[in-house]
Amino acid sequence: MKYKIKEINVDAGEFTVILNAKDAKEMGVRSLERVKLIAPKKTITAIVEISTSLVKEGEVGMLLKVTEALKETGAKTVGIMPTERPYSVELIKKKIDNHVLTGEEIREIIQDIANHNLTDIELTAFVVANQLVGMNLEETMHMTKAMVETGDTIELDKSPVFDFHSIGGAPGNKITLLVVPIVAAAGLYIPKTSSRAISSACGTADIFETIARVGLSMDEIKSITEEIGGVIAWGGNVNFAPADDMIIRVEYPLSLDPYAQLIASVMAKKKAVGSDFFLLDIPIGPGTKVTEHELANKYAQDFIEIGRRLDMHVECAITYGGQPIGKHIGPSLEAKEAMMCLEGKAPSTSVVEKSVAMAGILLEMGGIHNGKTVAREILDSGKALAKMRQILQAQDGNPDLKSDDIMPGKFKAEICSNQDGYVTSLNNKKLVRIARAAGSPKDIGAGLVFLKKRGEKLDKGEPMYVIYADNKNKLEVAVNLSNMTKPYTVEGMIIAHIPGSGRISGYSK
Amino acid sequence: MKYKIKEINVDAGEFTVILNAKDAKEMGVRSLERVKLIAPKKTITAIVEISTSLVKEGEVGMLLKVTEALKETGAKTVGIMPTERPYSVELIKKKIDNHVLTGEEIREIIQDIANHNLTDIELTAFVVANQLVGMNLEETMHMTKAMVETGDTIELDKSPVFDFHSIGGAPGNKITLLVVPIVAAAGLYIPKTSSRAISSACGTADIFETIARVGLSMDEIKSITEEIGGVIAWGGNVNFAPADDMIIRVEYPLSLDPYAQLIASVMAKKKAVGSDFFLLDIPIGPGTKVTEHELANKYAQDFIEIGRRLDMHVECAITYGGQPIGKHIGPSLEAKEAMMCLEGKAPSTSVVEKSVAMAGILLEMGGIHNGKTVAREILDSGKALAKMRQILQAQDGNPDLKSDDIMPGKFKAEICSNQDGYVTSLNNKKLVRIARAAGSPKDIGAGLVFLKKRGEKLDKGEPMYVIYADNKNKLEVAVNLSNMTKPYTVEGMIIAHIPGSGRISGYSK
Repeated sequence: MKYKIKEINVDAGEFTVILNAKDAKEMGVRSLERVKLIAPKKTITAIVEISTSLVKEGEVGMLLKVTEALKETGAKTVGIMPTERPYSVELIKKKIDNHVLTGEEIREIIQDIANHNLTDIELTAFVVANQLVGMNLEETMHMTKAMVETGDTIELDKSPVFDFHSIGGAPGNKITLLVVPIVAAAGLYIPKTSSRAISSACGTADIFETIARVGLSMDEIKSITEEIGGVIAWGGNVNFAPADDMIIRVEYPLSLDPYAQLIASVMAKKKAVGSDFFLLDIPIGPGTKVTEHELANKYAQDFIEIGRRLDMHVECAITYGGQPIGKHIGPSLEAKEAMMCLEGKAPSTSVVEKSVAMAGILLEMGGIHNGKTVAREILDSGKALAKMRQILQAQDGNPDLKSDDIMPGKFKAEICSNQDGYVTSLNNKKLVRIARAAGSPKDIGAGLVFLKKRGEKLDKGEPMYVIYADNKNKLEVAVNLSNMTKPYTVEGMIIAHIPGSGRISGYSK
Repeated sequence: MKYKIKEINVDAGEFTVILNAKDAKEMGVRSLERVKLIAPKKTITAIVEISTSLVKEGEVGMLLKVTEALKETGAKTVGIMPTERPYSVELIKKKIDNHVLTGEEIREIIQDIANHNLTDIELTAFVVANQLVGMNLEETMHMTKAMVETGDTIELDKSPVFDFHSIGGAPGNKITLLVVPIVAAAGLYIPKTSSRAISSACGTADIFETIARVGLSMDEIKSITEEIGGVIAWGGNVNFAPADDMIIRVEYPLSLDPYAQLIASVMAKKKAVGSDFFLLDIPIGPGTKVTEHELANKYAQDFIEIGRRLDMHVECAITYGGQPIGKHIGPSLEAKEAMMCLEGKAPSTSVVEKSVAMAGILLEMGGIHNGKTVAREILDSGKALAKMRQILQAQDGNPDLKSDDIMPGKFKAEICSNQDGYVTSLNNKKLVRIARAAGSPKDIGAGLVFLKKRGEKLDKGEPMYVIYADNKNKLEVAVNLSNMTKPYTVEGMIIAHIPGSGRISGYSK
């Protein structure tokens, strides 16, 4: 029997179909069990939900992901057959039962995740098991590999490929907008993909999107990098390690990020763009994802080792993330601050310091001696700005853009101190919540500008920071939310630099 | 702004609404985040899914559970406001982080579960955390209490109330259909609620439904018990411990049943019917839920202790469950076998032995000396059959029903031995799979009849068991599935009897 397809435009994450209750009973299928959908030349497995009215008898309701997956077949009807739950559910149970999984077993799970073949329930069981039981390095490596292999990959015609990534939690971390042009201006290739905000005030993709197009295709990422050395793209527009995106979907509502998962997530996305040399930024401090130096060290060692096994030279920088980086947070405001730094008008030293230091390590990994000095020269000489203009042009932005052109939200409120004293601390999480309340990242003009940061002297009644918003009501909500806050400044942002295994001593140009 | 309600007849387990993508963006709400639905005199929290076409701008799609919850308000439109995820998600994370939860914290979680306030993701995180981190006895007791308090309860006008329950995994365990009439015939009150099959061949509710109405209301359960002493009702028709049903919904696809969860699940449902004396049957053996004697003992001690804290006298019987109980499995076939036993025409000794032994323990808990002897007399004298006829009448069955009236499926196949020898083992799980393939429990005539069981001699070509089905194709599938099988028989089914804390030494009539 063939069932008539009814498209239902809901995106449920996994492959879900809705069956009429009578049809489901006839097939002996319950809610959350699985069926095979048999279309001409393509069969996929989907998870069943049941309705008595949304679909009629003889109809099958197909949610967005299923419709997309069957689009190529042009089918108007499908055969439906009950089927067993996938073997990977047994393997998830094996992990729950505290067993080490083999490479093949991990690949089986990751494949089913990438194929939208697991329910939220099964996927969550996998994530919570990884949180509580964990994975060893061998398993983590297999998971990384499987994530890469179940998605698209890029291979540049130029090599070697450089890349970097910041682990989350430090607001205002717009250094990508400086590091990429500096590194590219030094002649290295850096195809940087970035994410949008999940729980932060804004991600690099949100920031750069205010001044350029970030939804690039794989071909564009490749060609722009090959041509001008660097690109700043949104990772969500390409299909790198799609299993990771599915996993993040269930991690987010639980605010969980299991140790092995974090490593595999970052490494898979770097491997997918073919990175040969990779620098990891681990901001530590209250409110960051990795709060302790000791844990940051452990991550560093494990990232380096996984890199070694994946043939990628990894170095890590543990950086100061105890307060926001620079003076601006929010999409337009961060783009503005980054452009100011490139123009030599940095409103704070910390963005420039951190960017130059990170770019310097990348340059040394690329065989360029005195990397930090060279990076600073590239920035000071205007070469980085020139490179940024090339990137803006390649990504459909305005190559003549000036920081003064970038305007924050038109509604603003100054928050003043109610006593004299020195700023002693600044709470990342609370600031992020205020920025989000003001509308960030959706309202691109929303955000915060810090007038004072940690260590600075402050008089009673003196403004501490300014909240910007595109919308008056949201500004009010944000102002109401800001009952307690403090700012400050740091000079050298890098607390420690772990130079990798030494196996590859840096690329000689 | 008011959103127009569009009913969407899908039962997703939790409270789910579908928002148009533009509205969701405007509100700043993502998939799986929460909104408050504000109707006249009632506000509920729901989880958001997003669609670009299923609902128009200004509409809100309401899935079944939400529609039901707002029905009383008669609202055609609702206000919608983004809201935070519930505090219980933090508490689930606290459990994942290996903390002991307080009674209040557990109540918070269970309330949110009962109110359909947690997503499948959050609920699964709770179940997997309970599996891996576990709960101590104090937490288990709080969970049990919270489950009872968040559902309906019955209080009989008669007391004390007796009850029993078999932990799963032993196929053919139709003893409820003997134990209830024996115990009721002895003058005790036993309002027995039972479940339908989830992964077994059939549950007691499936069996008794073939000869009586099991979907009883709370009032019916109460009045029938008060009037004739016993009832056999389907627990799913009443709202006892609804949080447990929500938890089972996510446990089932993972085949997980965390230790504390099993205890709370059983005890909450017994407490909800007001049980004072409760006998737990723990079948052990390959393929049962509790496979090891040692684990069964631990369960027994903990059930007894939780009972003590809930003011319920609990005893446990560890029973033999290494092969099916009796000779029939499948809904009609088990009803038939139970009636045969009540009529004194038992096709096997094991059903009668186990039923009489279990009923005997219950009678002794009720202060009746020589319980087993009394139970056997009640059965042999026909008093149990007479009581069953009263129960059948009260539950809209045929009070004159005879076992011969109950017919198995009209299609059958004998499975014969391909060698001489003694039956040495019999695999519960494989037999269940064959019975389900034949159509059980949906096709009520489907099932198996064992001609030989463990220990019996068998000649080559002699039939071992018969598969019955209501449908010819399903019979074929079942026959194909039966490549390997064996049967047997036992005399005394009870391996050990743990007589509780001794604090209450049995009720003196």
